[in-house]
Amino acid sequence: MQHDITESMQLAATVMNRAQTAFLSFQHSTAQQRGALLEKIADLLEANRQTLVTIARQESHLSEARLNGELSRTTGQLKLFAQLLLEGSWVQASIDTALPDRTPLPRTDIRKMLRPKGPILVFGASNFPFAFSTLGGDTASALAAGCPVVIKAHPGHPNTSKAVFDVASEAISSLGLPPDILQHVSETGTQISIDLVQAKATAAVGFTGSFQAGTTLMQAAAHRTAPIEVFAEMSSTNPVVILSDLLNTAPEGTAQKLAASVALGVGQFCTNPGLIFMTKDAGLEAFQQAFIGALSSVPPSEMLHEAVLENYHNNLQIVLSQAGVDTLLASTDAGSDGLHASPSLARVTADSFIHNSALKTEVFGPFSLLVVARDQQELIEALRSLDGQLTASLFGTDRDLTDQQGLNPLLDILTGIAGRVIFNEVPTGVEVCHAMVHGGPFPATSSSSYSSVGTSAILRWVRPVCYQNLPDNLLPDALKNSNPLGIFRQINGNWTKNQL
Amino acid sequence: MQHDITESMQLAATVMNRAQTAFLSFQHSTAQQRGALLEKIADLLEANRQTLVTIARQESHLSEARLNGELSRTTGQLKLFAQLLLEGSWVQASIDTALPDRTPLPRTDIRKMLRPKGPILVFGASNFPFAFSTLGGDTASALAAGCPVVIKAHPGHPNTSKAVFDVASEAISSLGLPPDILQHVSETGTQISIDLVQAKATAAVGFTGSFQAGTTLMQAAAHRTAPIEVFAEMSSTNPVVILSDLLNTAPEGTAQKLAASVALGVGQFCTNPGLIFMTKDAGLEAFQQAFIGALSSVPPSEMLHEAVLENYHNNLQIVLSQAGVDTLLASTDAGSDGLHASPSLARVTADSFIHNSALKTEVFGPFSLLVVARDQQELIEALRSLDGQLTASLFGTDRDLTDQQGLNPLLDILTGIAGRVIFNEVPTGVEVCHAMVHGGPFPATSSSSYSSVGTSAILRWVRPVCYQNLPDNLLPDALKNSNPLGIFRQINGNWTKNQL
Repeated sequence: MQHDITESMQLAATVMNRAQTAFLSFQHSTAQQRGALLEKIADLLEANRQTLVTIARQESHLSEARLNGELSRTTGQLKLFAQLLLEGSWVQASIDTALPDRTPLPRTDIRKMLRPKGPILVFGASNFPFAFSTLGGDTASALAAGCPVVIKAHPGHPNTSKAVFDVASEAISSLGLPPDILQHVSETGTQISIDLVQAKATAAVGFTGSFQAGTTLMQAAAHRTAPIEVFAEMSSTNPVVILSDLLNTAPEGTAQKLAASVALGVGQFCTNPGLIFMTKDAGLEAFQQAFIGALSSVPPSEMLHEAVLENYHNNLQIVLSQAGVDTLLASTDAGSDGLHASPSLARVTADSFIHNSALKTEVFGPFSLLVVARDQQELIEALRSLDGQLTASLFGTDRDLTDQQGLNPLLDILTGIAGRVIFNEVPTGVEVCHAMVHGGPFPATSSSSYSSVGTSAILRWVRPVCYQNLPDNLLPDALKNSNPLGIFRQINGNWTKNQL
Repeated sequence: MQHDITESMQLAATVMNRAQTAFLSFQHSTAQQRGALLEKIADLLEANRQTLVTIARQESHLSEARLNGELSRTTGQLKLFAQLLLEGSWVQASIDTALPDRTPLPRTDIRKMLRPKGPILVFGASNFPFAFSTLGGDTASALAAGCPVVIKAHPGHPNTSKAVFDVASEAISSLGLPPDILQHVSETGTQISIDLVQAKATAAVGFTGSFQAGTTLMQAAAHRTAPIEVFAEMSSTNPVVILSDLLNTAPEGTAQKLAASVALGVGQFCTNPGLIFMTKDAGLEAFQQAFIGALSSVPPSEMLHEAVLENYHNNLQIVLSQAGVDTLLASTDAGSDGLHASPSLARVTADSFIHNSALKTEVFGPFSLLVVARDQQELIEALRSLDGQLTASLFGTDRDLTDQQGLNPLLDILTGIAGRVIFNEVPTGVEVCHAMVHGGPFPATSSSSYSSVGTSAILRWVRPVCYQNLPDNLLPDALKNSNPLGIFRQINGNWTKNQL
């Protein structure tokens, strides 16, 4: 078969092949070397903080305080991965020792551990120019795993992306590591994205963004000669359920807490609470009034860029125009400077909600839809009609929790659809830690088996490799008899730090 | 949109929805309950051994000794999963405790663990009527995870599948578990397979079989409204590399060892060594003669069924007819009873091999292709041209191993393409243990991140779920403060069995 090789395909092949060449040595780097790299990058980001925040401020319209916080989060997660590497047990080393006298057949020596997959393609996200972009969680976790990374810069903040990349390049160079373990592609458009996904040397893909872009990449990966995994974080409405006793006893406080989460960062978070469920209880009207009041007092703020505002308005109009939807608060910013948005709120009955998929689609921006059920049974039916989510939250009092018979089905449904189940806290504000799961069933992500935030994000870039009957000196350090890394290993089924 | 619901779609929806209903309670079963179930199934299989082996013997044409061995392997792996459940640490529990005084923001309590995904669809494999079919590794690992299983019986051994299923049903019933945690679909054909993959309630799929069938299922899953993972083990030629000193000092013994592996079970193993690489050294002719001699002495044996023999002959002819291929030993069984096959052997230069993809395709049956390179550099080039593999083996003497400069690139290539790297042992005979990896990059499997053999096979059926700020009494036992299961947990980054 003859294919026309376009310029874009050629570029994609060139950068991914360079990454493949860098992988030949980088896969053998020690945890100490990779830890030092992540620490060094974090230090240089810190040293360049003011410059980077200024560039990002111009491109993203996010506030200086927010960007400073995000940069701290970015350096924090780089350092957390360095800690993970130094502790070392994350490689899930497992050893089954030889049983030469076993009958009817002897058992040979079998050992396995997680090893890096190869060159990783990372797409920068529009809403987190630092923490989910060039040196965000995807890149940090892939470098930690020993995988070279090719960054496809987000067109919304190309200068920020390049400036951050330059900082990382300096760190790589100062430590004498292969320069091509990190490369930066600033070309824009769908075609170069698809060509990068389909380049032969690409081993896996990390993406945070829209449902449409994410599923386009998933299909491109599925149609490769050798399909690869795309770890895409795409779309979530983050349902919140408010239990009756709380709704009746603390309607205002609960509404204010949720309204603040809806408005936070002009609603530009993947974990924005876009659907709020409750039964038609005595506290409902007070809750609704307090919610309207809280959102009304939020001044219009700049969104990331014009297209984001336009999408907010368009998607909002689709929801507000559905049968049975009451608009409680309409964004009044149409015709402004094309950047400022203000919050919106609407209400619908669970009955109307259940069979209308248009109401289940994410509206990226400061909007939430109150879904009011006749009774507990209809509430459950409405929750059962939801797709996969990043988060699902439950708000209630101690008294609400005593009704185990009512509570358990709710908990089961929320656990079944979401990567993170939250009690009495808002879903925005994703902690970067070991136990975090920022993931969930489709369409929240492309694979519910992984998290894109926290140290377990590293698991996306590795695969288990088994070594059978290999001489000790040829084994990776993690699997050598003497356990030179001092890590926890599973030996004949039991976890221990012992040597053999 | 209006769709015509066919009978096949209706059947698929019915069984998968039943499995979903069973999941509502089965997901809350304890590790003890599931361990007892696996033990009970193993005991009943043992009690029915003679009957089951007799049925399988009639349908599969495998020898009684082989089927008895396979049944023991099947009961062994059920019991191994029971052990894994009782030890319990496999759920990867992780707890980050609250830091209320942290600045600038407090940290809340965050915990996560692996939880079952939901109903799993398992396809029986033709070549392992017990160990990779109805109650094989896929089913054992999915039930261990807490997932209901729907078995699509392999049409090659429908009675065996049903008899094994009946044994399992008896175990489920005797323990009072929901009957629909295991269902059996005996309808045949591609359409019902696709409809089962595409049924809404199906959470993931396990498959062992041909490349064509595996990729058909992968595409069906990718084109669902909500795509799911297909864990397909499909196609591998299991390259073997013989180093020079061994080839020159022990050509006959090495040839005999490999010939036995090629002929074992009439070559009907996923790990059959189908490609054997070496440089053109002094020992080559002796190796080749010994290989021909060993294979010639193997009597024709029955393959699984007529279609398998027919495919063996057809695929063999494709390889033998390629330019530069010398037939060293031709299967002489054409025109026999349509079941008996005898081994074949061929030879090709690495130069001819490198650019001919027809030579890299699996020939399922007792066949191997010797690939002879001019020198080490061409050998490496030939290995680099290989796709993903289940196994890659290296044979050598101590003296071969002293040449680290020659050895390391070889080890890197083999590690890069295979799930299991073997030294001085044949790839057939897959040990069921904790450290086994039966997996590898595409087309060996659909996802290199997992193994379908050994206890880590359970990881395919689970996803991490995070609980934020949940009261202790609402948490699963694995995450409760008191660590009632006594398992290893990651607490603030450190693995420990301590309670909080």
